[in-house]
Amino acid sequence: MGSLNSYVSDVARKAKAASLISATLSSREKNRVLLEVVRLLELGKKSIRQQNERDLRRAEERKLSPALIDRLTLTPQRIEEISGGVQAVARLDDPIGKVLARWKRPNGLSISKVTVPLGVILIIYESRPNVTSECASLCLKSGNAVILRGGSEAFHSNQALVHVYHQALQKFSLPLACVSFVTVTDHRAVDLFLKLEDQINLVIPRGGEALIRRVAHGSRIPVIKHYQGVCHIYIDEKADLPQALRIALNAKCQRPATCNAMETLLVHEKIASRFLPVLGRGLRKAGCEVRGDRETCRILPWAKPARSQDWGREFLDKILAIRTVPDLDAAISHIQTYGSAHTDGIVTRDRLRARRFVERVDSSSVMVNASTRFSDGFQYGFGAEIGISTDKIHARGPMGLDGLASYKYVVEGHGQIRE
Amino acid sequence: MGSLNSYVSDVARKAKAASLISATLSSREKNRVLLEVVRLLELGKKSIRQQNERDLRRAEERKLSPALIDRLTLTPQRIEEISGGVQAVARLDDPIGKVLARWKRPNGLSISKVTVPLGVILIIYESRPNVTSECASLCLKSGNAVILRGGSEAFHSNQALVHVYHQALQKFSLPLACVSFVTVTDHRAVDLFLKLEDQINLVIPRGGEALIRRVAHGSRIPVIKHYQGVCHIYIDEKADLPQALRIALNAKCQRPATCNAMETLLVHEKIASRFLPVLGRGLRKAGCEVRGDRETCRILPWAKPARSQDWGREFLDKILAIRTVPDLDAAISHIQTYGSAHTDGIVTRDRLRARRFVERVDSSSVMVNASTRFSDGFQYGFGAEIGISTDKIHARGPMGLDGLASYKYVVEGHGQIRE
Repeated sequence: MGSLNSYVSDVARKAKAASLISATLSSREKNRVLLEVVRLLELGKKSIRQQNERDLRRAEERKLSPALIDRLTLTPQRIEEISGGVQAVARLDDPIGKVLARWKRPNGLSISKVTVPLGVILIIYESRPNVTSECASLCLKSGNAVILRGGSEAFHSNQALVHVYHQALQKFSLPLACVSFVTVTDHRAVDLFLKLEDQINLVIPRGGEALIRRVAHGSRIPVIKHYQGVCHIYIDEKADLPQALRIALNAKCQRPATCNAMETLLVHEKIASRFLPVLGRGLRKAGCEVRGDRETCRILPWAKPARSQDWGREFLDKILAIRTVPDLDAAISHIQTYGSAHTDGIVTRDRLRARRFVERVDSSSVMVNASTRFSDGFQYGFGAEIGISTDKIHARGPMGLDGLASYKYVVEGHGQIRE
Repeated sequence: MGSLNSYVSDVARKAKAASLISATLSSREKNRVLLEVVRLLELGKKSIRQQNERDLRRAEERKLSPALIDRLTLTPQRIEEISGGVQAVARLDDPIGKVLARWKRPNGLSISKVTVPLGVILIIYESRPNVTSECASLCLKSGNAVILRGGSEAFHSNQALVHVYHQALQKFSLPLACVSFVTVTDHRAVDLFLKLEDQINLVIPRGGEALIRRVAHGSRIPVIKHYQGVCHIYIDEKADLPQALRIALNAKCQRPATCNAMETLLVHEKIASRFLPVLGRGLRKAGCEVRGDRETCRILPWAKPARSQDWGREFLDKILAIRTVPDLDAAISHIQTYGSAHTDGIVTRDRLRARRFVERVDSSSVMVNASTRFSDGFQYGFGAEIGISTDKIHARGPMGLDGLASYKYVVEGHGQIRE
C-alpha cells in the first residue's frame, strides 16, 4: 500500500504542476497540439490496432459479452472517428479567458469575471477506448490537466491512445502529465486519488450506476455525475396524437440502452383509450414489453401489470412502464416523485400547460414536443460532451467545454483602499 | 438516535416539498414576503430583543469572551440593519427564470438555458444572529428553501428572527418550511443532515476552519466553502511605492481578523531596502508584528525571524509575514505553493507584469493595485453575500444571489425525433 500511495500522489502532484502550465496556453498553442494528435492518430493506426488486439484477445479469453467486445474494438474507421472528434474539438471556441462580465464600481475599481480552467480533472471510466481521446482532447482544449483511469479491459488500447497525446505534447515541449494515464490496475488506487482534494479539482465518473455511486461516496473531491436517466414523457389530453406516437416510439425504441431513452410514459386518461392501442401496436412491433397500470392493462390486454418498483425504474431495455393520469398536475407529481432529474418531456398543443410543466418539472433537460433522445451535448450543438450532470451544482445537463471552466474575479484599481 | 433520525428526515422532507412551491413564486410574490418581513422586524423589535437577552444571559453565565458577546448582541440599531438588509435583497434583481442563452438547432429545436433555484440549501453557522436573516432572505429571493442550523449561543435570537419569517410566509399562505430552523441542538443532527443528498442540494458552512472541515468531510452533499484566506500582496520593483504602502497597510491593518486581510507580503528585493523601512514604521504604529525572512530582518532589525510554518499561515491577527523575492515569477511561485486561492494581489505600474500575475495566480479574486479587503460581495456590488468559495466548482469567490441558482435546458420542438 505504501508504494501505491506514493505512485498515486506522484501522479497527482505532476498533474497539478502540469495544470499550471496548461492553464496559460493560448488557443493557438492548444490547437497545435490537438492537430498534431490528429496527424499522429492517422500515422499510428497500425500500432493502436496492435495494442487493441491485445485487449481483444484477453477479452475473448475472459469470455466478455459480444456487446462489450464490440464496444472495445478499434476498427480503422473508429480510429478515424476518434481523430475526427479531436479535429472537431480543435475547431471549438476556446472556453478559457472569456470575460463573462465586466463592471465598474463607484470607487473606480474595475471588476472582470474571467473564465479559467478547473485545474486537474480525474476521469474514471469503463471499457470504450474512445472516451480516452474525447476526455483528453476536451481537457487539453480547456487548459486543464487530466488524469485518466480507464477500465482494465481496454488497458492497452487506452495506453496506445495516450501515447499519441504524449508524442504531441513532447513535440511542443509541454509536460506529458497534461494527459496522465493511471498504469496501476489496483482498485485501491482510485480510493487514494479520491482523497487528494488539494491536487484534483473535479472527478467525472463515466460508467454504470455502481461505479458512479462508489466514486461519489468515496470522494472528497466534487463529483459531476448522473446516477440514472429515468426519463418520462407525458402525453397530454391536448397532444397532437400522431406527433405523440412518433415521439414516444423514438424515445423508447431508437436506442433503449441510453440514459436519455424514455422509461415511463404518462398518458392523460381522457385520451388513453384512443392513444394506447396505436402506441401498443408500435411497441409490440419493436419487441417492446409494456408494464402498465390497471387502466393500461384494460386497454392493452397483452401488457403486464406494473409493480410498484417499475415506477422510477431505469430499464435500459425494451421495456416501458405506462401509467394513466387524471391531469397535468398528477403527471408532474409522478415525475417529482419518481424522476431522476435527467430529462422529462411533455407532448401538448396547449402552451399554458407546456409552460406549467416546464416550470414545475425540475429536470436538467425538459422537452416540449420533442424526443428525450435529444438530451446530449452533440444534439445541443456543444460539439462534444464530457458527461451529463443531474446535480444542481456547477454544470447541469449535457456538459461540454464550458463545464470544464471556472472563473475568477480580476479587480483592477489605482491604489484604492477600503475605508 | 431513532427519534433524532426521524426529526432530521422530517425537516428535510418538508423543506424539499416547500422548495417545489418556492421555486414557482414570481418576483412580486417573493418581494411581498420580504417586505412583510421588514415590517414585522420593525414591529417585533421588542420581542426579538427579549429573546436575545436570554442568549446574552446564558453567554455571560458561560463566560464567553466580550468579543463573542458583542457579536451576539442585537441592539435596536442592529435589528434595523438586519431589516435594511432584507429591504436591499427585495430590491435586487430576481436571479431565477433568466434566459442565459437561447439558440436554434438545424432541425428546428429551440434550446434555452434558464436559471432555476438550487432547491434546498442547508446553512450551518456560528454565533452572529444576523446571518439567520441574511441567509433566509437570500434563499427566499432565489426561490430556494433553506434549513438553518445556527450556533447554540444564539438559539433564541435565531428562533425569534425565524419566527418573523414564518409570520410573513403564513400571511401569504406559503409553507413555513421555506425557512426551516433546526430546533434540536444535538450535534449528531448535523451529521444526519449531511447524508440526505436526495433532499438537500447544497451545504454552506459559515464559521471557523474547524467547522468547515468537519462539514466538508462528513458531507455527501456538495459544500460551498473556503477553509482559509491566506492572502498575499506582491510589491513589484515597478510599484508606485506610496500607493504600495497605502494598500499594504490597509490590507493588513484595517480589519486583520477577516478572511480577505493580507497575511504575507512579498516584496521585490531591489526595492526592499527603500520600501520596508517606511512600511515597517506604519506597521509598528498599528501594533503589527512582523515575521520576516533574513533580508527583511536585516532591514527591520525589530522583526522576528519567520519560521517555515509562517508562510501560508492565516494569522487573522496583527501579524504579517514578509519575504523578499528576486522577481515576479518567484512571487507567483510562492503564492502557488502557499496561497489558499482566496485573494492575492500585485502592486505595479508595469502592465505586462500585472497581466502575467493575473494569468498565473489561480485565486478566486486577483487584485491589481487595490487592497485585498475589497474581495467581498458588497464591495463587488452584489448587494448581498451568502459566502465565499475558493473551490473551482459552481460559484467562485464572493457569492451572491447568482450563486444560489442553477439552470436547466428547455428544449422546444414540434415533433422532432432522433434519427
